[in-house]
Amino acid sequence: MQRLIKDLMLKYPGDTTIKAEVSLEDLDDAGAIDEIILTTDSYTIKPLFFPGGDIGRLAISGTVNDIAVMGADPVAMSSAFLIEEGFAIEDLEKILQSMHIACNESGVRIITGDTKVIERGSLDNLIINTSGIGKRSALLDNNLQIVKKYRNNFKALWLKDSNIRSGDQIILSGSIGNHGAAIMSAREDFVSESNILSDVAPLNSMIKEGLAVGGIVSMKDPTRGGIANLLNEWSEKSHLGILIDESKVQVNDNVKSALGFLGIDPFEVGNEGKICIAVVKEKANEVLCALRETKEGKDASIIGEATDEFDVVVVNTVVGGKRILPTPAGDPIPRIC
Amino acid sequence: MQRLIKDLMLKYPGDTTIKAEVSLEDLDDAGAIDEIILTTDSYTIKPLFFPGGDIGRLAISGTVNDIAVMGADPVAMSSAFLIEEGFAIEDLEKILQSMHIACNESGVRIITGDTKVIERGSLDNLIINTSGIGKRSALLDNNLQIVKKYRNNFKALWLKDSNIRSGDQIILSGSIGNHGAAIMSAREDFVSESNILSDVAPLNSMIKEGLAVGGIVSMKDPTRGGIANLLNEWSEKSHLGILIDESKVQVNDNVKSALGFLGIDPFEVGNEGKICIAVVKEKANEVLCALRETKEGKDASIIGEATDEFDVVVVNTVVGGKRILPTPAGDPIPRIC
Repeated sequence: MQRLIKDLMLKYPGDTTIKAEVSLEDLDDAGAIDEIILTTDSYTIKPLFFPGGDIGRLAISGTVNDIAVMGADPVAMSSAFLIEEGFAIEDLEKILQSMHIACNESGVRIITGDTKVIERGSLDNLIINTSGIGKRSALLDNNLQIVKKYRNNFKALWLKDSNIRSGDQIILSGSIGNHGAAIMSAREDFVSESNILSDVAPLNSMIKEGLAVGGIVSMKDPTRGGIANLLNEWSEKSHLGILIDESKVQVNDNVKSALGFLGIDPFEVGNEGKICIAVVKEKANEVLCALRETKEGKDASIIGEATDEFDVVVVNTVVGGKRILPTPAGDPIPRIC
Repeated sequence: MQRLIKDLMLKYPGDTTIKAEVSLEDLDDAGAIDEIILTTDSYTIKPLFFPGGDIGRLAISGTVNDIAVMGADPVAMSSAFLIEEGFAIEDLEKILQSMHIACNESGVRIITGDTKVIERGSLDNLIINTSGIGKRSALLDNNLQIVKKYRNNFKALWLKDSNIRSGDQIILSGSIGNHGAAIMSAREDFVSESNILSDVAPLNSMIKEGLAVGGIVSMKDPTRGGIANLLNEWSEKSHLGILIDESKVQVNDNVKSALGFLGIDPFEVGNEGKICIAVVKEKANEVLCALRETKEGKDASIIGEATDEFDVVVVNTVVGGKRILPTPAGDPIPRIC
């Protein structure tokens, strides 16, 4: 269904005589035009408050991260609220405070908005859309210069999904599954004792540390569909295979048991405070060290590499042997973002 | 309620060390930062298809117009779809086609998007958010130079609501009430025989003709709350009174009778293809003529002027006498945009 809709959307992009640097058909985390990054996300999470965060923190972090993974500096955002009549003003204020804090963490200002109050029954409590713009930075330009030292014919302006080449190392910035498991713990009593917190956070300051080292060719945050979806998108768009070492992918024990109980593969679960980075081999260890110096990236590790020996995502499993990791068929946990 | 929420939003703008040219607290049609305009709107119109348009045309036009009335050139947009499970794919395609056409009319490209399909019962069919960016143009700069010829100390970078001064003439680009009446005719059988079409359209090419003349100090589109709301926003933010000549405000007969039947004041009804322009007196007739040369502005007229003799909106009525035109207490027609 999602696929069908996406294909349909791509048929109607509007005026394509306007030149874009990253366009709708790239299906990347954001679009780009005239050195400006633009991204959008509508949030319909259920419940609105969950261990470790709420829809407000999620909306700011998600949009900041979509800008930052393109290599841009997030600067300004819009917020559009659809509010069901009767929604508690105290809850709205908590959510706004939480957005304010996340904006301050990431150095972003909300400069415009829209608010509509809709009659009861026509939506679930509250929907927030955040869109945002980001700008080119000297850090990104330096980073791309360093990539060019190691790779001929590298001409990318932004850290697109299609930039990866065989040999690039894949870094994951920390443990996976926390956000999805935290949402489930807010829905299901039997998970709530596990004390799992969502990882939702703006990651632009961590990303800056990586860019400052240089050599990064692509970045992406494993939200809907988790790292399984992310790695497959990279594989398809860059036309190569990715080999992942399962033992290097960290899943905390409480997350593993909560998701295991629900029969959900942590590789397919959305995260809101992690990124994957593809970096030229020569700079991989240096980028890794820089990430580990940051609060959000202290558990980063190199989890695999890109290869042109095959064209799918393959996992070297902990128990031995290899398995193909497909694109998830659907969201194992609906309404998590 | 809307007021309470707006006041609350303004308390939490995020990082205000980031300098904005037009900020959230301006409560204008868009924000501006580093010469870029950013705007956002979420559309929850009911029904999705109505005489003269649909939610798709509305979403593109509304966002294009919010950018254009600031004096900027709309260039790129995002579209975020929330779709209720089971929504007919044929209807979705019709809406996408309609967005595509409106984008082409306005020379705008959709460069990024988001699509989420949500379980039945959690929203009404379809919600679209469009956000967009616009850029400074030479036309705007020339327009502002011409304003400066006639006004000392004019320093505005954009066509903000607070730019108006006593003596400025108020132009309305055409007849009012059509959009609201068209929506009502799609809901109520007794109005449907009136053959009223919504005026929904992107207005950036008409606006360019006005800017090319020069002398425009502010522009705004009378959407929610109609021209009653618009004129009061201008009056409050520019700290002056506005005197309107009711006989100059065109309401088509079929619109007048449909709205009259429903007890709705055309001044309070949302429009989606009209703008109000405040222009220095010396250039008012020239701007008016330029608008009248365009398809969208052929019925434009000067409907009044700004004055510092009082500080509210006053209407010289057709029947004689004056009445104060207050800010509408609520939306006379809910879910029209």
